[in-house]
Amino acid sequence: MANETGKTRGESLTVMTELVIPNDTNMLGNLLGGRLLYLIDIVGAMTATRHAESIVATVQMNTVEFKRPIKLGCIVELTSYVVWTGNTSIEVAVEIYGEDPITKTREFISKVFMVFVALDAEGRKHKTIPYLPETEREIQDYEEAANRRRQTI
Amino acid sequence: MANETGKTRGESLTVMTELVIPNDTNMLGNLLGGRLLYLIDIVGAMTATRHAESIVATVQMNTVEFKRPIKLGCIVELTSYVVWTGNTSIEVAVEIYGEDPITKTREFISKVFMVFVALDAEGRKHKTIPYLPETEREIQDYEEAANRRRQTI
Amino acid sequence: MANETGKTRGESLTVMTELVIPNDTNMLGNLLGGRLLYLIDIVGAMTATRHAESIVATVQMNTVEFKRPIKLGCIVELTSYVVWTGNTSIEVAVEIYGEDPITKTREFISKVFMVFVALDAEGRKHKTIPYLPETEREIQDYEEAANRRRQTI
Amino acid sequence: MANETGKTRGESLTVMTELVIPNDTNMLGNLLGGRLLYLIDIVGAMTATRHAESIVATVQMNTVEFKRPIKLGCIVELTSYVVWTGNTSIEVAVEIYGEDPITKTREFISKVFMVFVALDAEGRKHKTIPYLPETEREIQDYEEAANRRRQTI
Amino acid sequence: MANETGKTRGESLTVMTELVIPNDTNMLGNLLGGRLLYLIDIVGAMTATRHAESIVATVQMNTVEFKRPIKLGCIVELTSYVVWTGNTSIEVAVEIYGEDPITKTREFISKVFMVFVALDAEGRKHKTIPYLPETEREIQDYEEAANRRRQTI
Amino acid sequence: MANETGKTRGESLTVMTELVIPNDTNMLGNLLGGRLLYLIDIVGAMTATRHAESIVATVQMNTVEFKRPIKLGCIVELTSYVVWTGNTSIEVAVEIYGEDPITKTREFISKVFMVFVALDAEGRKHKTIPYLPETEREIQDYEEAANRRRQTI
Repeated sequence: MANETGKTRGESLTVMTELVIPNDTNMLGNLLGGRLLYLIDIVGAMTATRHAESIVATVQMNTVEFKRPIKLGCIVELTSYVVWTGNTSIEVAVEIYGEDPITKTREFISKVFMVFVALDAEGRKHKTIPYLPETEREIQDYEEAANRRRQTI
Repeated sequence: MANETGKTRGESLTVMTELVIPNDTNMLGNLLGGRLLYLIDIVGAMTATRHAESIVATVQMNTVEFKRPIKLGCIVELTSYVVWTGNTSIEVAVEIYGEDPITKTREFISKVFMVFVALDAEGRKHKTIPYLPETEREIQDYEEAANRRRQTI
Repeated sequence: MANETGKTRGESLTVMTELVIPNDTNMLGNLLGGRLLYLIDIVGAMTATRHAESIVATVQMNTVEFKRPIKLGCIVELTSYVVWTGNTSIEVAVEIYGEDPITKTREFISKVFMVFVALDAEGRKHKTIPYLPETEREIQDYEEAANRRRQTI
Repeated sequence: MANETGKTRGESLTVMTELVIPNDTNMLGNLLGGRLLYLIDIVGAMTATRHAESIVATVQMNTVEFKRPIKLGCIVELTSYVVWTGNTSIEVAVEIYGEDPITKTREFISKVFMVFVALDAEGRKHKTIPYLPETEREIQDYEEAANRRRQTI
Repeated sequence: MANETGKTRGESLTVMTELVIPNDTNMLGNLLGGRLLYLIDIVGAMTATRHAESIVATVQMNTVEFKRPIKLGCIVELTSYVVWTGNTSIEVAVEIYGEDPITKTREFISKVFMVFVALDAEGRKHKTIPYLPETEREIQDYEEAANRRRQTI
Repeated sequence: MANETGKTRGESLTVMTELVIPNDTNMLGNLLGGRLLYLIDIVGAMTATRHAESIVATVQMNTVEFKRPIKLGCIVELTSYVVWTGNTSIEVAVEIYGEDPITKTREFISKVFMVFVALDAEGRKHKTIPYLPETEREIQDYEEAANRRRQTI
């Protein structure tokens, strides 16, 4: 992989920080699952489009578990980065943390893997720029993603 | 299961029909994945709350695949129904179709399984009403869901 | 009318189920009238466009009465169906129910008649597909709608 | 009526000017009927609450006709004012104009009559402040509204 | 300036009245600063586009101070009017009042100066119609604005 | 200042990355100034609340200049950090960049200074935690902010 030209993780890593406002919440004053899923998709799409330098569309979101609620007035921090690329597909990981700025607690909420496909301006599949994992951790992430892709097909 | 008191699938089946308007779309004029995930969560939550007769929170969404895009001006139809209940958990299936009312094409988009937990007014886990599968198909769905739950734990 | 080619009520009947979230509510925590009017227009437009197989525009909404409030966390169920067609006009009825999933009360909120006009892609009036009432009830609805149209002109 | 204490039309007249942005539009780039109905309800509610000095709820909207479309980028101007009060009810008229700031055309879109009910903080019906029509035109509006109310009951 | 052809302040003065609904509020139930800034920009843009009879873009917003909070359920009234024009620039003032319709208090919130630039359909700068100040107050406003512009450049 | 206990810039620095979707745009397909002002206020408020560990309200936004437009489909990146604290006030800087992921251009849009006030749960002014500038650049930012505050009063 070393000789291949491509892009590194850092070139498309994206941080999205959001405030939980009333319309995002359910009857208990907690962030709606659906609102969080919306944010996960948008931050993942920004990483995929930054990496592929093209329009992208969501094709898959792997199992999501919501470990704990996030309250009204708290901060949601989403970090997304590339873990694998195929010919036209980009797999992205999104890590989500919830933070109460007043009590200063910060808790892990979920980690989600999503697959996007690169598209041209007519909406046809388009070759993506390859992702070049660098560290040991990145190479391991890459191999795990390649396994997920094999199982999906 | 026959002697158990509980509720049937039909008692909480929910249909949500939505029009794709400009703000729901990406650069190609297709429904954003994140907007569809939001709708899936809301319709699933309505089925879970109708079944459990309590507040619910999303705890898991299984792998979602988006088979094809839905264009601006098209109609999205989401149908959700209970497939399994545990002590405090309710598993719901959501089936999604996209429909172009002008060309009269109607296409399958995705089928998603979600788990909700029943909560009381203080946000504590709460015993749910049992789901009673009736038809052969419903019993099969129930057993498949029970398998998914065992794998998750 | 029996020999005429056209479409039946069932072919464009549309069900829209929505959850009342905080931003939809007034100072008393009840669904805003304006938000409900928005939903009524959208569900009516989906029925009209499904029937006419063309773009449609709202031209009239008959008197609406809101019988009772719908609280935050409740479910609104809107059902719309064709009652009459003219040359380019489609009259649609929308029935609205409010449902509290926790107390299991379900109450009639309102029934509204709306007129849409079928349009081509340039926004010019366009001949609609005729509606074929089938049952006695549908024929009676059709005649009442024809009377409303005569009074309007 | 002259000796009665109450409030005049000018004390609660409300002007709401809005820009048509992409999410407010349909497939032809025209303002959605449902979005306009939402604005009509909000501006009417502001007049009713300014007049009654209490929370209000929408109880009726009389027949609305949309004479012509309003395009993306145009300005919608809504003016609402009291026309009649009963014991707990306030009837409000809303006049709507569409304006293209570039071609400088300004067109009448619709005039709508709405009834609101004054409520206390627990949501119970509440006596409203009487409306005092002053000009000949206001007295005529008042009598027409009183006729509409008699027909409704 | 008397012989110059142009437009007066009244020809583009715009009033926007809005109700503070839950999603517009922070943890204390007060209007979010960001929501108010959004409304200020929209009402200012409507005045600028009405004056210039062209598309406009925001190029500057002068210092804004929020003197006091506006509570949920209150009314925000924004009035915008032209104070100065250059070759392609329009300076607009926006005055903001908050009103509690129940207690009948009405308070000054802020006065903001904004600069817009007139654009043609391709987004290039475009000559604006000159503004003709008429009263002594308008001439003073004009001179103060001209001073602000000189300091900015 | 060295002996004072307080917090550093890095402890409340916040990055918010957003995608420009259709509803955020004007007639030319560019991000609305008002939408960008909304985002600036939210990201600034997250930094202020993270620093002060309390609810905050916006009290001032200094002059904002928008150097160039941001197109539909582009990414907006906002970074906010504390520059100065007083007794109950926190001054925050927000830097905004626009990025076209397809052409890979990244451009400076604006830098804005905002003042927030720390509040307790009843909305009364509340002593903030002091900010401790560390680097030479931070000390210079601090002194410039202190000058701005003196001019404002």
